[in-house]
Amino acid sequence: MKIRVAIMGYGNLGRGIECAVSQNDDMELAAVFTRRAPESVKVMSGAAVYHADSLLEMRDKIDVLMLCGGSATDLPVQTAEYAKYFNVVDSFDTHAKIPEHFARVDQAASESGHVAMISVGWDPGMFSLNRLYANAVLRDGSDYTFWGKGVSQGHSDAIRRVSGVRDAKQYTIPVEAALTAVRNCENPTLTTRQKHTRECFVVAEEGADKARIEQEIKTMPDYFADYDTTVHFITEEELQRDHAGIPHGGLVLRTGKTGWNKEHDHVIEYSLKLDSNPEFTACVLTAYARAAYRMKQEGMKGCKTVFDVAPAYLSPMTAEEMRSRLL
Amino acid sequence: MKIRVAIMGYGNLGRGIECAVSQNDDMELAAVFTRRAPESVKVMSGAAVYHADSLLEMRDKIDVLMLCGGSATDLPVQTAEYAKYFNVVDSFDTHAKIPEHFARVDQAASESGHVAMISVGWDPGMFSLNRLYANAVLRDGSDYTFWGKGVSQGHSDAIRRVSGVRDAKQYTIPVEAALTAVRNCENPTLTTRQKHTRECFVVAEEGADKARIEQEIKTMPDYFADYDTTVHFITEEELQRDHAGIPHGGLVLRTGKTGWNKEHDHVIEYSLKLDSNPEFTACVLTAYARAAYRMKQEGMKGCKTVFDVAPAYLSPMTAEEMRSRLL
Repeated sequence: MKIRVAIMGYGNLGRGIECAVSQNDDMELAAVFTRRAPESVKVMSGAAVYHADSLLEMRDKIDVLMLCGGSATDLPVQTAEYAKYFNVVDSFDTHAKIPEHFARVDQAASESGHVAMISVGWDPGMFSLNRLYANAVLRDGSDYTFWGKGVSQGHSDAIRRVSGVRDAKQYTIPVEAALTAVRNCENPTLTTRQKHTRECFVVAEEGADKARIEQEIKTMPDYFADYDTTVHFITEEELQRDHAGIPHGGLVLRTGKTGWNKEHDHVIEYSLKLDSNPEFTACVLTAYARAAYRMKQEGMKGCKTVFDVAPAYLSPMTAEEMRSRLL
Repeated sequence: MKIRVAIMGYGNLGRGIECAVSQNDDMELAAVFTRRAPESVKVMSGAAVYHADSLLEMRDKIDVLMLCGGSATDLPVQTAEYAKYFNVVDSFDTHAKIPEHFARVDQAASESGHVAMISVGWDPGMFSLNRLYANAVLRDGSDYTFWGKGVSQGHSDAIRRVSGVRDAKQYTIPVEAALTAVRNCENPTLTTRQKHTRECFVVAEEGADKARIEQEIKTMPDYFADYDTTVHFITEEELQRDHAGIPHGGLVLRTGKTGWNKEHDHVIEYSLKLDSNPEFTACVLTAYARAAYRMKQEGMKGCKTVFDVAPAYLSPMTAEEMRSRLL
């Protein structure tokens, strides 16, 4: 019997889940739910598409519901609401609001007896795990997280709001010198500017004042003012041809000292290079869907993060296979 | 109340545990046990040293016993034996024999109601975790593990057994071209020779035939014959001065494809650069000692590997702290 997974919200992440489920033999896609008109949504796998309003009618046909909405307005409402009826997995990534999100979801999932996995993905998610493991192992050390090279949707959107901009794509790029200093155990204290640069590819409206646009971007508070930013004006065709993807990635490093006189340095480094940010995120969510299903089967309930999930729950292998093939 | 940790076997790993315990505020070193004459063993921390034979008298004063013996003859006997009386952690690293070691230890620990963590360290250990996580996330892909640059004790010992060799140190080094091909998602099938090179620093006896020694090393089956090996003859002073440390490290990579048409490549890479192999290994064991203690407190029992331990058990932080600081 396969794990029956359903998707709520069919955007980039939802499509990524659809792909990921197809790569996991022990899972099947039960249905896709959307707030749009279901007949207007064409899914790759041919799975059934229903309106979000009919979700509860499917309660008995779904083992895990994947919440593919956004962290700004969708998930703060949806996760706690749906945890009343389903095991759920979300990718809530507003770091500062995780504690309150956890509390809300934990109450709902504990009362209903379901497992609700929140903040799954790569950051939060795989990066968080690596921060935790590295901190538990190297007790006397320093943490560093770098993002990129990759597309920041938020920064691309910010550029698009500048008047005279038709379209834009922004890449976040780690500063190589900072990475080198960290890897050399120099323990640097890095400013925002020293950690990342920002590179923008901008399609301007015809006749727009490019110098003014560039100036507005580079001085934009929060988004760009604290960074060394490069702005390239390109054509719409170039943007489509060279910048259509949504790659991302990044690095988590911890350096630390051991020895009775702290005479030894160590570097733990984890990095991701991803051609598709949403598809990789979806793969992580799908692995945690397996864990949610199994943990519920074992009688667990409540809100869980990646910290609460023993790694073995994520793999389709048996414990014996894992020990002989992966340990 | 601190977690009372005891050390069985005071070699490099035991000393590493002593250092690691001193870096963890929630732990204290209860005692060191040795098979040597206790009065001959001088410990850095000033902890009490007892003979191994008196271990059982200390049953009530030890929460977790760290088994710091070797995988060849010590641990196959000790871990199952001591799991009858203690929560234990070992670094059993004979990959092929892990299944039988697990079975033996699981029986003892399950019967006695203790938690026995086996095969903890970095490989097996942190590398295994990364293989498992990466496999669970990227279902369609390839795994690669590289070791080094670092000292292989086994290969150094093998060189020392060549007649005319007074002392030697062997470094295992990943081949950069192989790493590059993996990182570029070329999915290479790599031979032993293509993955690692071996570099040997040898002190010859006076008057020994160096050409013969070099030839014997390079053609030694299993150890060197399948590798490109470099042999440097140096003086005893140079060996002491430049090769006294026991650094190690390595990389675990998984590359994989996602997308409905497998059109996107991803690279997950985990790497360690360690000045001291035994001290880092000891840090990992110490984190898992915390987990063993907590899991036993929660009523768990039996043999566990890193796959069975939810990451949260490893950290001294509260769940709230973890979520707000590391997630």
